[in-house]
Amino acid sequence: MLARQTARRTSSQLHQVRNMITAQAVVYTQHGEPKDVLTTHKYEIDDDNLDKNSIVIRTLGSPVNPSDINQIQGVYPSKPEKTTELGTAEPAAVCGNEGLFEVVKVGAGVSKFKAGDWCIPTKVNFGTWRTHALCSDEQMIKVPNPADCKARGREPLTVNQGATISVNPLTAYLMLTHYVKLEPGKDWFIQNGGNSAVGRYASQIGALLGINSISVVRDRPNFEEFARKLSTENGATHVITEEQNNSREFGPEVKKWTKATGGEIKLALNCVGGKSSAGVARKLAPNGLMLTYGGMSMQPVTLPTSLHIFKNITSAGFWVTQLLKSDLDLKLRTLSQIIEWYETRQLKDSPSHENHFSPDADLAACYIHAVDSSKQGKQLVVYQ
Amino acid sequence: MLARQTARRTSSQLHQVRNMITAQAVVYTQHGEPKDVLTTHKYEIDDDNLDKNSIVIRTLGSPVNPSDINQIQGVYPSKPEKTTELGTAEPAAVCGNEGLFEVVKVGAGVSKFKAGDWCIPTKVNFGTWRTHALCSDEQMIKVPNPADCKARGREPLTVNQGATISVNPLTAYLMLTHYVKLEPGKDWFIQNGGNSAVGRYASQIGALLGINSISVVRDRPNFEEFARKLSTENGATHVITEEQNNSREFGPEVKKWTKATGGEIKLALNCVGGKSSAGVARKLAPNGLMLTYGGMSMQPVTLPTSLHIFKNITSAGFWVTQLLKSDLDLKLRTLSQIIEWYETRQLKDSPSHENHFSPDADLAACYIHAVDSSKQGKQLVVYQ
Repeated sequence: MLARQTARRTSSQLHQVRNMITAQAVVYTQHGEPKDVLTTHKYEIDDDNLDKNSIVIRTLGSPVNPSDINQIQGVYPSKPEKTTELGTAEPAAVCGNEGLFEVVKVGAGVSKFKAGDWCIPTKVNFGTWRTHALCSDEQMIKVPNPADCKARGREPLTVNQGATISVNPLTAYLMLTHYVKLEPGKDWFIQNGGNSAVGRYASQIGALLGINSISVVRDRPNFEEFARKLSTENGATHVITEEQNNSREFGPEVKKWTKATGGEIKLALNCVGGKSSAGVARKLAPNGLMLTYGGMSMQPVTLPTSLHIFKNITSAGFWVTQLLKSDLDLKLRTLSQIIEWYETRQLKDSPSHENHFSPDADLAACYIHAVDSSKQGKQLVVYQ
Repeated sequence: MLARQTARRTSSQLHQVRNMITAQAVVYTQHGEPKDVLTTHKYEIDDDNLDKNSIVIRTLGSPVNPSDINQIQGVYPSKPEKTTELGTAEPAAVCGNEGLFEVVKVGAGVSKFKAGDWCIPTKVNFGTWRTHALCSDEQMIKVPNPADCKARGREPLTVNQGATISVNPLTAYLMLTHYVKLEPGKDWFIQNGGNSAVGRYASQIGALLGINSISVVRDRPNFEEFARKLSTENGATHVITEEQNNSREFGPEVKKWTKATGGEIKLALNCVGGKSSAGVARKLAPNGLMLTYGGMSMQPVTLPTSLHIFKNITSAGFWVTQLLKSDLDLKLRTLSQIIEWYETRQLKDSPSHENHFSPDADLAACYIHAVDSSKQGKQLVVYQ
């Protein structure tokens, strides 16, 4: 069914409709496994009769995040509202929370954007798995397009950088800066999942801020080479194995490192849980904080009682969605810092496998393929 | 060996020594099991030549706390300094952290105390397992003796109340009042170990403050009767079993209770750990806090990752020793509230098994017996 999404307008304007954009969106009407519940919905956007504050955007790229998949499955606490706004027979939601867009056309009252500008959604649940969108200018935040970057003598953002900026880099930056005061050149943080996307952003951002880091990774045959790479390319001060993390004998080695800088391990980042979380928490100095932002082992966060009572260790959670929900200013400031590091090539983005979508293909099929490939690494759907 | 503890004084005063008090203290020179390392040390206190700010006190009662035993074993992070101050051949420490004393004599410059006053140690590590002590007036806090209470038309404190006031009642009161704002008549706290000494203080103090409580206790044959008693005598609003605490099916029942008062469960108190800690944490409202003050199951604190990330539950530790170390004012205010509730018989103390010490018995043997009896319940050594 080809439905029509129009801006609100008077009936006298209806006859002016022409040259509509045919858009596609990946939607679901009920929760389940993506392959079972995702369909492509086609609808038209009337870009000749825009409301004053409306903009029409086209998608440059949008990633498949674990939270997007959990949202479709119905097991994620942040959920988009299901509506019939796009002309679906039943109330439906558009998938996807992150993405990079290009402005195609703007309403008469829009001064924040012009055609050709790049933007990302202001909030989650925008529905980024689609070719185009009609929305208000407030629903988008401007990010510099290649021309903007060049004009300032900077390197252009890549589509991958723009499309994946809102979750992982912001998570890493905010965990390192928003809770505990870490003294540059002296203090430390420790993290498990040191080779995860957030983990590599955290060690890089730590290095950019002058904060020392210990990245815990799973043991592997070529560990020495792997660790060296994580240090030289991703800024980790030290890289240790999960076995070392869990070993009491390794404690004094870590103490030597912190003694040498005259600082303390004041922060632990946990995305694994189970005994790995106990291991990183044990290395915290008294009054230290562990932030949990994931649970890859599927084991609960585990904390020896004595760490709570006698070392006053606190264990808290981090969810970028919740933190930034009511603090747009914090989001804008954080984005601005990450963009500056990208433009000056001081920060490397986490690479994605690109899935190219061509307009004659089926969009839902493209994303279902990307979801299936997620185990091989982060997937990005790139639009032509 | 009979040594002599004297206040610092000039050599010209030395000849005045007479009528000394023969004191006994339970000491250890090295850590180990109490029965292996505790000895009685006898020494004399020269109460005729007191320094200006010195006081001589005699012990009315002192309890055996788990932390006292752990301190002797060397596994407790707060440790008294070992000295030869009492005339021991090797540096030794006096056991015990809590106790109630009566002032026997005061130095010329002491205005805070007079003979007959009751007092408790200002700080931990005072060494309370002894018959007498010579100390400065700053090392003691006055508590009302029976005459003081009567003068104000109140009921007298008992020796058990005075001797055990510093740890358990203060722990319960401070956990309920120092971290989370609980709205009287509406809000709730949940605790495991609901039948422990701290647990019973917490439910009583909750009731006195108008805060609703859910006390989790181990299942037992006569549960209904036991629960009723914990409600009527110790103020618990609801009493549930560990099985109910761990059951997802029981969740809606708890929701009904909180809905009826229009409040939330904002605080969880954990002294068990393991799955019991996960159970009480699951019942917290978003942004709730779990305070851990013990680990009776010997299992680490366990927290489902999603509670941290999506419900923003924070898990922290509570240690009364550390909190009050640098905040004497908070200690005085809290003591004053507990004393008022005791004097007006609104708060019931946790009963202790009394071990009576007579001066011709061996003091270390008396405490070793009390330590051995600790599994049968809290032990108090009472002095004649």
